[in-house]
Amino acid sequence: MMKSKAYAALSATSQLVPYEIERREPGPDDVQIEILYCGVCHSDLHTARNEWKNTLYPSVPGHEIVGRVVSVGNQVHGFKVGDLAGVGCMVDSCGHCHPCQEGEEQYCEHGFTGTYNGPVFGGENTYGGYSKTIVVKQSFVLHIKHDERDLASVAPLLCAGITTYSPLRHWKVGPGKKVGIVGLGGLGHMGVKIAHAMGAHVVLFTTSPGKIGDGKRLGADEVCISTDPEQMAVHANGLDFILNTVAAPHNLDAYLQLLKLDGTMALVGAPSEPHPSPEVFNLIFKRRQLAGSLIGGIRETQEMLDFCAEHNIVSDIETIPMDYINTAYERMLKSDVKYRFVIDMAKL
Amino acid sequence: MMKSKAYAALSATSQLVPYEIERREPGPDDVQIEILYCGVCHSDLHTARNEWKNTLYPSVPGHEIVGRVVSVGNQVHGFKVGDLAGVGCMVDSCGHCHPCQEGEEQYCEHGFTGTYNGPVFGGENTYGGYSKTIVVKQSFVLHIKHDERDLASVAPLLCAGITTYSPLRHWKVGPGKKVGIVGLGGLGHMGVKIAHAMGAHVVLFTTSPGKIGDGKRLGADEVCISTDPEQMAVHANGLDFILNTVAAPHNLDAYLQLLKLDGTMALVGAPSEPHPSPEVFNLIFKRRQLAGSLIGGIRETQEMLDFCAEHNIVSDIETIPMDYINTAYERMLKSDVKYRFVIDMAKL
Repeated sequence: MMKSKAYAALSATSQLVPYEIERREPGPDDVQIEILYCGVCHSDLHTARNEWKNTLYPSVPGHEIVGRVVSVGNQVHGFKVGDLAGVGCMVDSCGHCHPCQEGEEQYCEHGFTGTYNGPVFGGENTYGGYSKTIVVKQSFVLHIKHDERDLASVAPLLCAGITTYSPLRHWKVGPGKKVGIVGLGGLGHMGVKIAHAMGAHVVLFTTSPGKIGDGKRLGADEVCISTDPEQMAVHANGLDFILNTVAAPHNLDAYLQLLKLDGTMALVGAPSEPHPSPEVFNLIFKRRQLAGSLIGGIRETQEMLDFCAEHNIVSDIETIPMDYINTAYERMLKSDVKYRFVIDMAKL
Repeated sequence: MMKSKAYAALSATSQLVPYEIERREPGPDDVQIEILYCGVCHSDLHTARNEWKNTLYPSVPGHEIVGRVVSVGNQVHGFKVGDLAGVGCMVDSCGHCHPCQEGEEQYCEHGFTGTYNGPVFGGENTYGGYSKTIVVKQSFVLHIKHDERDLASVAPLLCAGITTYSPLRHWKVGPGKKVGIVGLGGLGHMGVKIAHAMGAHVVLFTTSPGKIGDGKRLGADEVCISTDPEQMAVHANGLDFILNTVAAPHNLDAYLQLLKLDGTMALVGAPSEPHPSPEVFNLIFKRRQLAGSLIGGIRETQEMLDFCAEHNIVSDIETIPMDYINTAYERMLKSDVKYRFVIDMAKL
C-alpha cells in the first residue's frame, strides 16, 4: 500500500479536513494517476453530508478526475506513463451481467463500484478524487484528447458531461429536434453546450432572467423564463425531448405539457424530497414519457470526451484550492458558481 | 333530423333516465347504425357524474358500440346495409394534423370529437351509444369480423380492447418479452388476453387472491398478489413492460421496481386524485420510463378487431338491459362485474 494526501469528511456534520488515505500498489491491470484536477459535483456534497443515508466514513469525494499517468501494470496496453487520463463515477463493475456486456456498467445488475463511497451495497469503501493519486483498473480509465491547457475545464466532463451526453444520445437528439434543457447549473450548462453541438434547436429553461445572456452564449437558441406562464405557453406541445437537470422538487407538469406526442422528459437529478406527483393526463394525452438516466457507460464516456474534444467543449469553471472546499460547498448550495468548481490538486 | 330513444344523465347528481335525442340524417359520407349492444366503460360513469369537470348535459354515454348498418350515404364504399359495424371512442378529428395524418386521431392536435361529450374543447355536444341508433362518418366506423353470435362480447373491444392493444403494440410486446398487467378489471382482463395472444409471458398483478384462477384462465402465465412483498420481490427488475390499468391512486414505485433496464410502465387509467409521487431514483437507476397511453387510432382499432377475431378474443361480459344501468354503475364502483357490463339495446 502507498499513502496519499487527501481531504475527507469524517462525519455527516463535520467539515472536510486534510486526511491521509492508502491506495493499493498498482497491479498488472492497473493505472496509477497523479490527480491534477478534480471537479466538485453536487453528489460530493450529498455524500459528505450523508444526505442519501448511505455514506461510509471517512468519505473522500470526487469523481471528476483528470491527471497524468505515473505508472502502469504490465498488462496495461492502452496507457503509458505521461499520458493524460480521466476517471469518472465508476472504478469497477461485475463485467458479466447484460448491461456490463453492453458497455452500460452504470446499470450493472450487481451494482457498480463508485469511485468514492464505492460498494454501497457491501464491501470496502473507496476514496475519490479529493486526493493526490488514484489507482484504477485500466478498463475504467479514460483517454483525454483535449489540449492539456484545458485540463482543469475537462474534469467536469467526467460526471456533468456524461450525465447530460448519455440521455441526449439515448433519446436521439440531433438536427431537426427541438430540445429543452431545464436548469443552468453544472449539469445544465453542459447539456446546453452538448445539445447545441449535436445540432439540435436548444431551448433553455431557467428561473433566472440574469442567465439569459449566458444561456445564449453557451449555445441556447432560445431562453425561456420558466416562471412566466406566457413564455412557457409558447412551447406547449413543441419539444421532442427535455433534459431536466434540476434536483430540487418542482412542478414536472409544467414541462411535461411542453412535450410533443411521444416526447420524453429525462430526469438526471434526484430530489431529496419528492417532486409533486405528475398529472397522469399529461402522460396519457400525448403518450408522453417521464424517464430517468444515470451517468453513462465507460465506452460512451470515452465517446463523449472525444466528441467534446472535437467540438471544443469544456466546462465553464472556477478553479479553487483544496482547502477552499467547505466554502465552495456553501456557495454551491446558493448556486453561486459559474458553473462548476474544480479543485487544483497541485495546491494540496 | 330523426329521433332516437336513449338514456341520459341530465345532471351530475341525477340517475340516468329515458331520454329522446335527435340524430342527423345520414349525409353522403355517413353510415347509420342500429345499435345492438353497447359496453359500459368506467369513463361513462365519470362523465355522467361530471367527475372530470367537463360534462355537457344532457349526457348520453357509451363508446363501445356494435350494431348493424341500416343506411349509408352515396359516398360510402366500405359499408353496406346489413353489415355489422362498430364505433369506438371517437367520431371525428381534424384529419390534417400530423397525428391524424399518421392515423393516430386520438392524439389529434385540435382535439378529436368524442363519441359522447364530444367536442369538450368547444362546439356541440355528441350523444353516445346508450341509444337505438347513431350516424357516424364512414372513416370512424369499424368492420366486425367476429361471429355474429359473439356480438355482445365484441362491444368492449371498441374501448377496453384498443386501450390495451395499442400500448402493448407500441411498446413491442411479443414472444420473448415478459409483460406485467396490473389490475384485472374491464381493461386488465383484455390486457391479459391480448398480451397472451401476442406471445408474451404474462404476469398478472392483482390485490385479489380470488382472481388467481380467472387470471390464469384468461391467459396469465403467472399471477402475483401485489400486496405480498415476497411475491413482488420475485419479479424485481424482471419485466420488459407493464401495462397499468388501475385508475385508483396507488404506489407506482412498487411496479417501477419490477422493470428491467429501459423498461416502461404505461398508465391507461387516470386517477381523480394523484398517485403518490414516484421515486426518481427508481427511474434513474434503470433508465426506466413512466408513460401514458390513450385508446388508439382508427386504423389500429381495426387491426385490433381483426387480431381479436383471428385469435377468438372477446370480452368476458354480463349482459344487462338498459334500465339496469344505474345499478350497474353502483356495482362497477364495487368492481362487482366479470369483467364488463354490456347493454342489450333490443330491450330499450
